[in-house]
Amino acid sequence: MTKKLITACIGAGNIGRAWAMMFARAGHEVRLFDQNADAPPAALALMRGLLADQKALGLFDDEVEAVLARIKVAPSLKAAVKNADYVQECVYEDLELKRRVFQALDRAAPEGAILASSVSSIPVSQFMENLAGSRRCIGAHPINPPHLLPVTELIMSPSTAPATYERAAAFLTSVGQVPVRINKEIFGFALNRLQFAIVNEALHLIEQGYISATDVDNIMKFGLGRRWAIMGLFEAGHLNANGGLRDYYTKFGETIRSLMQELVLTPNPLGPALVDEIAGELEKTTPIDQVVARQAWRDRQLAALMTHFESMKTKVG
Amino acid sequence: MTKKLITACIGAGNIGRAWAMMFARAGHEVRLFDQNADAPPAALALMRGLLADQKALGLFDDEVEAVLARIKVAPSLKAAVKNADYVQECVYEDLELKRRVFQALDRAAPEGAILASSVSSIPVSQFMENLAGSRRCIGAHPINPPHLLPVTELIMSPSTAPATYERAAAFLTSVGQVPVRINKEIFGFALNRLQFAIVNEALHLIEQGYISATDVDNIMKFGLGRRWAIMGLFEAGHLNANGGLRDYYTKFGETIRSLMQELVLTPNPLGPALVDEIAGELEKTTPIDQVVARQAWRDRQLAALMTHFESMKTKVG
Repeated sequence: MTKKLITACIGAGNIGRAWAMMFARAGHEVRLFDQNADAPPAALALMRGLLADQKALGLFDDEVEAVLARIKVAPSLKAAVKNADYVQECVYEDLELKRRVFQALDRAAPEGAILASSVSSIPVSQFMENLAGSRRCIGAHPINPPHLLPVTELIMSPSTAPATYERAAAFLTSVGQVPVRINKEIFGFALNRLQFAIVNEALHLIEQGYISATDVDNIMKFGLGRRWAIMGLFEAGHLNANGGLRDYYTKFGETIRSLMQELVLTPNPLGPALVDEIAGELEKTTPIDQVVARQAWRDRQLAALMTHFESMKTKVG
Repeated sequence: MTKKLITACIGAGNIGRAWAMMFARAGHEVRLFDQNADAPPAALALMRGLLADQKALGLFDDEVEAVLARIKVAPSLKAAVKNADYVQECVYEDLELKRRVFQALDRAAPEGAILASSVSSIPVSQFMENLAGSRRCIGAHPINPPHLLPVTELIMSPSTAPATYERAAAFLTSVGQVPVRINKEIFGFALNRLQFAIVNEALHLIEQGYISATDVDNIMKFGLGRRWAIMGLFEAGHLNANGGLRDYYTKFGETIRSLMQELVLTPNPLGPALVDEIAGELEKTTPIDQVVARQAWRDRQLAALMTHFESMKTKVG
């Protein structure tokens, strides 16, 4: 799957545009379709600016116009998926809409095409089952922005074929994504469950007056976030004892178990007073009228971090 | 507090050595005391090698011998703290021992000296209360290795004076640490509670077959860890909507609340079968006999990441 493929993006909103740019940057042909015929030309105009930004961040070498030239507006869903190898559905998060689109895709796409959904929360079985081609359907949930945080959750529906996972993973790898496998359906998949497990504990600590939101963020920025950006949760433990993870859990298992017993472990209601307190803290550093500028700072930071880790591969393995 | 201070490290083990090197690298004078008289000379010999490693990682510019020359072995606790500005206690995590040491420090140290404890789990009030100088005592919990993950939790005991926090924070900032304020005692402070809240959810997801440990680590390395290394938990939300955190929680609050309701939120028992499964996965990539080499890789990665973020300050603010 490292050869250039024919891909289709169904839906030309934020997510459809993001995928289209990533597929085209990697050299693949993209057909862009949206049921609103005005959307794809507007998307192309937006993408010209976004690709220029990405090029300025050093994310690709091609000329912007060369990348754009690989993205073609398709006049119909059927035309979009003709001879396609990989189809990425990017319509609104609405069950009936996704059902209708998957039925149409399954009828129109060639037998060998992967049908992937940019689903963010609906259980995939609710729109991928009972299709002739259920086996080639799979969830493919990116994080926003996908070109700066390159992990995609691939969600297996009960009838997704293992080969579909393998092919989707190989294709996504070819466009610079790191695919992770969600073996069966679960609310929030894995990334958002992990994210909100830590946010939940943080909200309790702030609400109960133990620490400020700013200092929670400092713990992440100067401690845990750096550790995890390099090693993840478990390799960090594996390297914490000379005998690896077994040794670590033997030495510290009792302490870890006690700590997990002590966690708050109830859902925080995220009430208005707490939101006020945390937002108030953040607005001191970044007032609302500076949020957009700070988003641009974030994107520069994320792009530079991606470049940094790429360069480290050759430097230290 | 940017001037050069007189500091003392009480205890010459791992943590005592780490603090001593950091204080000396920043130009402060260090007196190293250990109740075992053989320990400080042995520590100095070890530090010569460790400082050479740190210098090779680009963590400081001075000559190794110049840094070492600032660290003097003290013949007694009393000699160590004479005229000291800042004292860091680094003895074993044992309540009776810490009580005894804090009583001795409070008697011997000059009135103006800060008495900080490298406590990792004991409630600080249990050894900092009922001293004449309770107000100048504070917890100072580093993450290991402190020179590569530069956040220190400063833990207020019920009688710690706010000025003690301010002075300790200023001193730790002068040695390259980012201090965070734990306003009152809680088991695990904040960093380890946050860490094990996410580990707990990850353990459940792995145990229930949703995802592999490797893919949890990939989610952190290519997604959440990068995000948090740059922005922390809450600034990430603040930049997720143009109207900042209030806007973000207004738009996504219901989804976030539902997700937090769905988290497992029970302590995982971390049983032997699960430890086996996760350790087995990790050992495929890093067998036990390669753990030490991989630790050196980790240290190079952490040092390079620190340098990267330093350089970004001048580049993008």
